[in-house]
Amino acid sequence: MRILVINPNTTASMTEKIAKAARKVARPDTEIVPANPAQGPSSIQGFLDAAICVPEVMREIKEHKDLDGIVIACFDDTGLDAIRSLVGIPVVGIGEAAFHAASMLGTKFSVITTLSRSVAGLEANLLRYGLATKCGKVRATDIPVLKLEEGAPREMNMIRDAISAAIDHDGADTIVLGCAGMTDLAETLSQEFSVPVIDGVVCAVTFVEALVAAGLQTSKSGGYAYPLG
Amino acid sequence: MRILVINPNTTASMTEKIAKAARKVARPDTEIVPANPAQGPSSIQGFLDAAICVPEVMREIKEHKDLDGIVIACFDDTGLDAIRSLVGIPVVGIGEAAFHAASMLGTKFSVITTLSRSVAGLEANLLRYGLATKCGKVRATDIPVLKLEEGAPREMNMIRDAISAAIDHDGADTIVLGCAGMTDLAETLSQEFSVPVIDGVVCAVTFVEALVAAGLQTSKSGGYAYPLG
Amino acid sequence: MRILVINPNTTASMTEKIAKAARKVARPDTEIVPANPAQGPSSIQGFLDAAICVPEVMREIKEHKDLDGIVIACFDDTGLDAIRSLVGIPVVGIGEAAFHAASMLGTKFSVITTLSRSVAGLEANLLRYGLATKCGKVRATDIPVLKLEEGAPREMNMIRDAISAAIDHDGADTIVLGCAGMTDLAETLSQEFSVPVIDGVVCAVTFVEALVAAGLQTSKSGGYAYPLG
Amino acid sequence: MRILVINPNTTASMTEKIAKAARKVARPDTEIVPANPAQGPSSIQGFLDAAICVPEVMREIKEHKDLDGIVIACFDDTGLDAIRSLVGIPVVGIGEAAFHAASMLGTKFSVITTLSRSVAGLEANLLRYGLATKCGKVRATDIPVLKLEEGAPREMNMIRDAISAAIDHDGADTIVLGCAGMTDLAETLSQEFSVPVIDGVVCAVTFVEALVAAGLQTSKSGGYAYPLG
Amino acid sequence: MRILVINPNTTASMTEKIAKAARKVARPDTEIVPANPAQGPSSIQGFLDAAICVPEVMREIKEHKDLDGIVIACFDDTGLDAIRSLVGIPVVGIGEAAFHAASMLGTKFSVITTLSRSVAGLEANLLRYGLATKCGKVRATDIPVLKLEEGAPREMNMIRDAISAAIDHDGADTIVLGCAGMTDLAETLSQEFSVPVIDGVVCAVTFVEALVAAGLQTSKSGGYAYPLG
Amino acid sequence: MRILVINPNTTASMTEKIAKAARKVARPDTEIVPANPAQGPSSIQGFLDAAICVPEVMREIKEHKDLDGIVIACFDDTGLDAIRSLVGIPVVGIGEAAFHAASMLGTKFSVITTLSRSVAGLEANLLRYGLATKCGKVRATDIPVLKLEEGAPREMNMIRDAISAAIDHDGADTIVLGCAGMTDLAETLSQEFSVPVIDGVVCAVTFVEALVAAGLQTSKSGGYAYPLG
Repeated sequence: MRILVINPNTTASMTEKIAKAARKVARPDTEIVPANPAQGPSSIQGFLDAAICVPEVMREIKEHKDLDGIVIACFDDTGLDAIRSLVGIPVVGIGEAAFHAASMLGTKFSVITTLSRSVAGLEANLLRYGLATKCGKVRATDIPVLKLEEGAPREMNMIRDAISAAIDHDGADTIVLGCAGMTDLAETLSQEFSVPVIDGVVCAVTFVEALVAAGLQTSKSGGYAYPLG
Repeated sequence: MRILVINPNTTASMTEKIAKAARKVARPDTEIVPANPAQGPSSIQGFLDAAICVPEVMREIKEHKDLDGIVIACFDDTGLDAIRSLVGIPVVGIGEAAFHAASMLGTKFSVITTLSRSVAGLEANLLRYGLATKCGKVRATDIPVLKLEEGAPREMNMIRDAISAAIDHDGADTIVLGCAGMTDLAETLSQEFSVPVIDGVVCAVTFVEALVAAGLQTSKSGGYAYPLG
Repeated sequence: MRILVINPNTTASMTEKIAKAARKVARPDTEIVPANPAQGPSSIQGFLDAAICVPEVMREIKEHKDLDGIVIACFDDTGLDAIRSLVGIPVVGIGEAAFHAASMLGTKFSVITTLSRSVAGLEANLLRYGLATKCGKVRATDIPVLKLEEGAPREMNMIRDAISAAIDHDGADTIVLGCAGMTDLAETLSQEFSVPVIDGVVCAVTFVEALVAAGLQTSKSGGYAYPLG
Repeated sequence: MRILVINPNTTASMTEKIAKAARKVARPDTEIVPANPAQGPSSIQGFLDAAICVPEVMREIKEHKDLDGIVIACFDDTGLDAIRSLVGIPVVGIGEAAFHAASMLGTKFSVITTLSRSVAGLEANLLRYGLATKCGKVRATDIPVLKLEEGAPREMNMIRDAISAAIDHDGADTIVLGCAGMTDLAETLSQEFSVPVIDGVVCAVTFVEALVAAGLQTSKSGGYAYPLG
Repeated sequence: MRILVINPNTTASMTEKIAKAARKVARPDTEIVPANPAQGPSSIQGFLDAAICVPEVMREIKEHKDLDGIVIACFDDTGLDAIRSLVGIPVVGIGEAAFHAASMLGTKFSVITTLSRSVAGLEANLLRYGLATKCGKVRATDIPVLKLEEGAPREMNMIRDAISAAIDHDGADTIVLGCAGMTDLAETLSQEFSVPVIDGVVCAVTFVEALVAAGLQTSKSGGYAYPLG
Repeated sequence: MRILVINPNTTASMTEKIAKAARKVARPDTEIVPANPAQGPSSIQGFLDAAICVPEVMREIKEHKDLDGIVIACFDDTGLDAIRSLVGIPVVGIGEAAFHAASMLGTKFSVITTLSRSVAGLEANLLRYGLATKCGKVRATDIPVLKLEEGAPREMNMIRDAISAAIDHDGADTIVLGCAGMTDLAETLSQEFSVPVIDGVVCAVTFVEALVAAGLQTSKSGGYAYPLG
């Protein structure tokens, strides 16, 4: 199957990193089609960036044919409802994928994200998805997302501190990394802390594969009832 | 990978039906290992049946080695927390799988189940998983689960009526079939009603595959923090 | 004070209708500045329309100087968080304004909106604002929004039926008209049904005036913490 | 228009302070009518005080004619439902007004109140209004309300500490001052902390003005369905 | 032990009826002390009546010495928080008692009350007590409470219809009679409908006895932290 | 009346301790019948232990005749729904009894339990019972339950620290001891901290007595609709 993995921001290096993570877990017969819009913000860390990039993301999606599913590779699930209204195939955001996965692996998760400004949007998503009851806390590290690209040790320690706090104070038994830029840290941190540390990219890719394999489609009734075109 | 698909009741014909549905969607390299306990109730339709069968289900699970994941193939996710406490591999119930899938495909789902007696347990699960906010209503048809084995037309019409009511009165744009015995009706009903009609078995199988492919494990911290035997 | 009343769709006749309603209730010294984007959908009735128009709405907002407040004149509060991130002055959506007003006038309200497709977005807003607990039901009439422009009697009766159902079945003691296009029906229907029938436009205009008079500004900390341009 | 601003306690100096704050933000053509009951507790800081003063407050309200709206100037919205049952004009409590205003200005607010004993009542109100989901925490400073009259510097620092804690630990981007006696501190604290610091008196006055200007009345159906005297 | 059973309204015949019901279930060594205020409304069916009678109820309570517990015998638990602030002994309202009892006997209850005007207050209580999640619906019969005193057959049938609707449409397996005036109907209706039909008076009396026997007292910390005496 | 007080674990010394606590508060004419299953885990501290013991508990219950009510004497209310499905008499768990009692004595309670592993199950119960909104926090002390049998001073101090934290940080005015093994500490700790400290055993016994005295039975409709054997 062919899955479009769209990074809603315009930072190509992040798109590559995401594609690499996606391919690592995808089925042998899955073609990962990475993409990002040509125009728009270089990172999405709040409501303003998110709103600006959505039409660009939709424009980019329309360029691609013969897709079986779409992954929205930004942790705030940028434009999720609009994109589901646009297509008939399954669409999964990396934020929701991580939340759903965490709900099936532990009893309570906390989210470690980048800027404080992003917290409100993630909390709103959790409330809407219903999964706020499974979430201990959304914790900001105030590391800018593009800084993560560089893998600096100081930033890693800030993430470690946040994970420790989540386990000790929130009662979290599962950690969700709340940024597509953290995608390559999950495995290391999971071993260090002996709890599942979940990256949304790998969950979203395998969940889209799961929905396609199960023969399921996005509903074209109710809130997504736009004619396919 | 090897996935144990355990039917918590002792009705072998239902185990077969479930295994068939599971194999239809599983990856080519996935081995579906169907099982049911030797002792216990012949169907699980309420709190009493569910409680009785859990130790038998756990006994059966311990008989199997080299598993990569487990599907609990009863819609009330019988013994889910206990089984997660028992193992380190991913465990997914068909009820939760269907609820999570529905949450990623539409804006509101309703559940069509068998006996009225089962409704309370499903509502309790939805509340606990957080997904009650995404659910319009749990609708009982008062068809006994084993009757579904026979595919009688009168029973099919009762299910059709419940689906119509869910779309018209609950605002559901997605339907979840709330019983492992309905597993082979999903495709037909989905075409008839032009909305996703979701069977939990196929979702649970593909979600376990997804979690395994994503390299994720059940948390052994927090509520499931039992030492692995 | 100067209040921008932005209709997020491109239908100028609706912008005029909204401006007229706004001016009717505005303070003598308030200047209502009506606007709509030059490009985008002619009506907003669902997630797709909403997402497309937001960048256009923000572009239009930037054209206006010396504003004291902004009203977003679409009932789904299109782009509310993004627009609050853009400016420092108070921003109020007509949907939230109507919900907040209804919460201060009665014990339970129901919402009468246009298309079924709009319901999911309004329910999501109610959940997020916290006011879902005050709302009996969001009822769709399946009248297209532009049809309301014509004031056809058949459509009026469909709205009347929905209001009756809300009072009788939802226990609503207050009615919210869930569409900017219904703005001139509130008074008549309120008299007919002897309950407050609330139009969001007049609430949003007077609430923005209230917030400005109270000396309050949009927070530039937390989720809206973008530097002011 | 004529707005009765009723301080439910008998401390005339507080009534004056409230009236002054109200007049500062009221429209030029609004007449603020300050009042307090002749009998009852000198401050309202808990369930017992609140219950005792309600009949006195209602007696006082009945003394006034030709009112267009009523502000209940105690942060626990003393007797709000009973007073709405008594009249047909809009009635707004300063607590709810502040919560609604905060919901339209930021993504999360915390409340800074006086005695610990008051917290339970405010939390109950937030839950009932639905706005508990928007509130980080209700924080008590354990400053007696009448102490605030004196503007002592030690008490100011206790309030400052509580605001800092709300921003740092609750993720609040908006602060609500939970006591009518704090009404003159909002502006100073807002500048100090660079977040909106909201006083309920000014919000309630401008919101009542807004509802009156919008032509809205208290519902006389449902829970407030008492015949008007 | 001595338990004050206070009917907050002034209808002595209802006080007697309640006392009779209370004595029927009280322990042999429990002295039921029935009381009602000398002044105030003759029935309590909404926010206005409730608010007016609370100070009178508190005055009446202070007349009684050597009490071990208090039952507030109006279904809206009139003045519950204020009365708990007044005393150190256990205080139980008949509404909350019935909700708690129903929660321990079935999986979902519906409430059958008198006037539509009472519904909002009961729903607010349920939300606050947390037990709204266990309640299917609060159903009004629009029978005036004093009419119940006469036991008219037409009114009985209206109650029967409401119970049928609760079982069929709300999925209720337990019925709560939402008015002290219905106290003598519970047994008959329970037999007729084969579900527990719960009267709050008998629950509140036996629950106060239970709390006293368990050696428990009302908390004098937190929200009820008023000095005794 | 005859009340079966069943300790779901096999530790006879704990059964005795519980029986002693039960008899201390039971009515003179109540016969407390203590019991524990012959087989199963020696303590129940998590999902796995709980699931294993339920069929054994049900087997034990069937051995007893002429019962009027049942107390499940483990704080996670082990097998509560299944046991209610089995019988017609009232069944009360000590966890729910303590939560309901706390809800009638204060405005907010916190729970002090033993192992961290038990927290998830208690939080799930609170959510389901609806009483999560009344609970500040479930705090684990990580004292093994059988250690409590020995009354060691170090363990007592860990419990004291948790109570202090609950009062200071959670705003709790009532404390619930979340383990049957803590049953004899309640009185001492209540005096030390001047707040109600609630043991579930005494509440469950007196609540079962209350329900029986009130003439109430477990519903045999809805979720517990199993035919009585």
